[in-house]
Amino acid sequence: MSEVVKSWTTRRDAKAARLTAAQSLLNGKFAKTQDARAVLETLIKPGDKVVLEGDNQKQASFLSQTLAQVDAAKVHDLHMIMSSISRPEHLDIFELGIANKMDFSFAGPQSTRVSQMIADGTMQVGDIHTYLELYARLYVDLIPNVVLVAADKVDHDGNLYTGNNTEETPVIVESAAFKDGIVIVQANEVVDQVPRVDIPGGWVDVVIPADEPYQLEPLFTRDPQNITELQVLMGMMVIRGIYEKHNVQSVNHGVGFNTAAIELLLPTYGEQLGLKGKIVPNWEVNPTPTLIPAIESGWIQSIHSFGGEVGMEQYIAARPDIFFVGADGSMRSNRAFGQMAGQYALDMFVGSTLQIDQFGNSSTVTEGRLSGFGGAPNMGSNPTGRRHSTPAWQSLRPDDDPLGKGQKLVVQMVETFGANKKPVFVDHLDAEKVQNEAKLQNVPIMIYSEDTTHIVTEEGIAYLYKTDSMAERQAAIEAIAGVTPVGLRSNAKQLADLRARGIVALPEDLGVKRSAAKRSLLAAQNMDDLISWSKGLYNPPAKFRSWS
Amino acid sequence: MSEVVKSWTTRRDAKAARLTAAQSLLNGKFAKTQDARAVLETLIKPGDKVVLEGDNQKQASFLSQTLAQVDAAKVHDLHMIMSSISRPEHLDIFELGIANKMDFSFAGPQSTRVSQMIADGTMQVGDIHTYLELYARLYVDLIPNVVLVAADKVDHDGNLYTGNNTEETPVIVESAAFKDGIVIVQANEVVDQVPRVDIPGGWVDVVIPADEPYQLEPLFTRDPQNITELQVLMGMMVIRGIYEKHNVQSVNHGVGFNTAAIELLLPTYGEQLGLKGKIVPNWEVNPTPTLIPAIESGWIQSIHSFGGEVGMEQYIAARPDIFFVGADGSMRSNRAFGQMAGQYALDMFVGSTLQIDQFGNSSTVTEGRLSGFGGAPNMGSNPTGRRHSTPAWQSLRPDDDPLGKGQKLVVQMVETFGANKKPVFVDHLDAEKVQNEAKLQNVPIMIYSEDTTHIVTEEGIAYLYKTDSMAERQAAIEAIAGVTPVGLRSNAKQLADLRARGIVALPEDLGVKRSAAKRSLLAAQNMDDLISWSKGLYNPPAKFRSWS
Repeated sequence: MSEVVKSWTTRRDAKAARLTAAQSLLNGKFAKTQDARAVLETLIKPGDKVVLEGDNQKQASFLSQTLAQVDAAKVHDLHMIMSSISRPEHLDIFELGIANKMDFSFAGPQSTRVSQMIADGTMQVGDIHTYLELYARLYVDLIPNVVLVAADKVDHDGNLYTGNNTEETPVIVESAAFKDGIVIVQANEVVDQVPRVDIPGGWVDVVIPADEPYQLEPLFTRDPQNITELQVLMGMMVIRGIYEKHNVQSVNHGVGFNTAAIELLLPTYGEQLGLKGKIVPNWEVNPTPTLIPAIESGWIQSIHSFGGEVGMEQYIAARPDIFFVGADGSMRSNRAFGQMAGQYALDMFVGSTLQIDQFGNSSTVTEGRLSGFGGAPNMGSNPTGRRHSTPAWQSLRPDDDPLGKGQKLVVQMVETFGANKKPVFVDHLDAEKVQNEAKLQNVPIMIYSEDTTHIVTEEGIAYLYKTDSMAERQAAIEAIAGVTPVGLRSNAKQLADLRARGIVALPEDLGVKRSAAKRSLLAAQNMDDLISWSKGLYNPPAKFRSWS
Repeated sequence: MSEVVKSWTTRRDAKAARLTAAQSLLNGKFAKTQDARAVLETLIKPGDKVVLEGDNQKQASFLSQTLAQVDAAKVHDLHMIMSSISRPEHLDIFELGIANKMDFSFAGPQSTRVSQMIADGTMQVGDIHTYLELYARLYVDLIPNVVLVAADKVDHDGNLYTGNNTEETPVIVESAAFKDGIVIVQANEVVDQVPRVDIPGGWVDVVIPADEPYQLEPLFTRDPQNITELQVLMGMMVIRGIYEKHNVQSVNHGVGFNTAAIELLLPTYGEQLGLKGKIVPNWEVNPTPTLIPAIESGWIQSIHSFGGEVGMEQYIAARPDIFFVGADGSMRSNRAFGQMAGQYALDMFVGSTLQIDQFGNSSTVTEGRLSGFGGAPNMGSNPTGRRHSTPAWQSLRPDDDPLGKGQKLVVQMVETFGANKKPVFVDHLDAEKVQNEAKLQNVPIMIYSEDTTHIVTEEGIAYLYKTDSMAERQAAIEAIAGVTPVGLRSNAKQLADLRARGIVALPEDLGVKRSAAKRSLLAAQNMDDLISWSKGLYNPPAKFRSWS
């Protein structure tokens, strides 16, 4: 009787068998564009865990379109792992029976359809993550069989150049390349020599030249002409009442007009306050064009980025002192390291949201739209594992605890009523309903009250970290919630008391003149001004060129 | 009058000038071993931020020895950034005036001298970090001018092979390579072709063949013969009362005999309980030899590692289904991604400590020894940014909060008295004194009470997450603190009440027979047994070979 010998190389053998089966389609590592579908049908097996690169900005669009064309009799029941559900075919594959389960982070453009497909059972959701925790699971319990990623250029050895938009490609590829997963890359261009190697060719199994360049969206561009004077007022309050007060040195700005206003006020209002050289030298942020005036005025020393931004390439290449740029001259971004930095190395996160409840919990999940989390909860949370101290972090240390420590500043900046005229401050988040509809384990809260240290509205700033009970926290929120139902519960006596104790500050308490909050205070009024500030190096995408 | 044009390429120009000055010492990227000192004196400038690779296991020992030999008149006032202060010359450079400031994570072997040098002002400490937050700062406010790292093999283009001990090399190199920092590598060997590329040659500026291979220590090897029967008892309690109870799927084990006991009980006691295939398939942990029996018995599906472990190379290469292994057959570790996974993707962290205070705060910092943090606070904390759910995490969700969520299991496992016969449970941590002596911003607490969900001693388990006041938490700790001064405050009535409410469990409450807690229950009794389990693939370092 022979002993059954257990194999310890099942993954390696499976990979080898699949690649052997695909030999007729491959010339070395290279497949032909027109064979892409056959390649996927040969290399992907039913039930596989498949990572499809979909960042915020960059999409492996050729591979996702190809995946949606495979024969569902051959490839089905895939377990998709995607940081961003951005394109129609990302969901089509569920309707076609090619995939049945999804673990993801963000579903901005597809959030309505995601909600529907969960409700009707077309798509089973594993869970919804922040970017960083989704990447983390690629090394623990979501180890992929196949990854589908996008590169700009590739040489004949399979070395990849990702250029400005490196984004999440490295963290995805590593999880497969070193666990006998199959790494399949779509490339915009095959060249004799890549400008630099972002990912070594030895980590890559198959390269398919794409029929068109990967999709790339300028998601972080905000036209200054759309910034309102209320946003200018709030920006002034934030600079005085938070940046200056707490001596903030490092920051992430969420995407939006509120934070764009702050960026455009640094070289003007910040300069008037004498804060240049004193605050925010170090940034973890995408290269948003509204940062250009602050960079050109010498406010900013360094910017590390999650991804690139369309139109900023030449400007970035000309400012290597500020951005992370390779020897080839183009930016290297890195979403995994950026999220790591955003979580652990920053004094402050400031962002916006769609709803804040009476307790201070906030969410961008609203009825019928399951938008996911992205990176905000990672950066907008207080990492309790942090042990190093900075003046800003330490300024939030409680006075009464000898074993206490500092805290990350997590700032929510909202107008009391949203663009849709609905109140931002509500008794209950829509997210509570969405939990039930989508059968989620927990309410999809973006930023919890316990992590939120400041809320800023056009009324004033609530310094929530100073409150010592939930009742006091609620009162502070009510005090700045304007004429929303939540805000109407506040009264003059309460407000006076909270102001006296420094828990709430109105513009006048901060020395901010409402009459000074004019659009003319912005360092740039429009896209043309940004181009001028950039000395012509910034090249906005067509949709931001109203004059062209 | 000519306009003064601001330069945006000061870092790039400085780098180019330094490399030009070193031209006579370089042949392409390569310098001669005997020129190493001159190379460092030319490429490093006073005041530079310098990252010196010192992991747990791997040390850039040739470069650190060389740095200690440079002329302090030429190279001085360096700001060192090091995850681990491990070797004498890591501190000698401060006494020699070569460096004056240090940001670090861990100082195990040098902790006494670190304390002294801080006290006498020889070394100024920026701050003490976890590994992940130190890496994070390399991209934000500790961007290096020069990095000194170690590789196993390098080819003529400068492509690096790190082999099993990739550790922190990639996260360090990237921070310099893409911000015009200078990347200097010591190599054990220059070869025509590296087995695989771990770091592309284009990211590397200078390679110096070392005079001897880099230092590599087997820090995670524990000889089973030193595991006590008390540790067996505690291991049994943890398997029943935590792993099984909470359905733990993914875990990090801190280094120590307590967790080694658990590893060696899985194939025996765990098997008796019928838990095989039900708990802990996925691990983020160094490849500790005491995991071999659990791997061979089919308990473990995957292990991702921060670093390698001396002697485990052949075994790992033969088990690619379990470990992260490259196409070349050797492991790829990654401390940055491992810490990311350890923080965000695990159900549970279990480790040991030297002191626990009456409130449940713990620290390994004891009088006169400032050992730093390493990775434990990162993994042993509840990341409030986590949004995905697992059964174990969700099992700690509070019942009374509709907006509540789960929590990471953070388990401290200690005997009530330490090896030095001193009580582990104390009213006040030594760390409180060390804060004053070392002038630290906060008390250097390793794991805070608020993050600690369970404490296990030979007396029983305290389920701290179930307590709803600090007084109750203290009572639960007292109940398992034995005859330490803290433990003596407990009484029979209190204990009975805590047991009745499931806040404390004694072995009998868990169905664990004290009489069964024998060393014979361990799957391996000694190193020889581990070798047998490994089918001869594990090759212990000489110091663990008592029979040779």
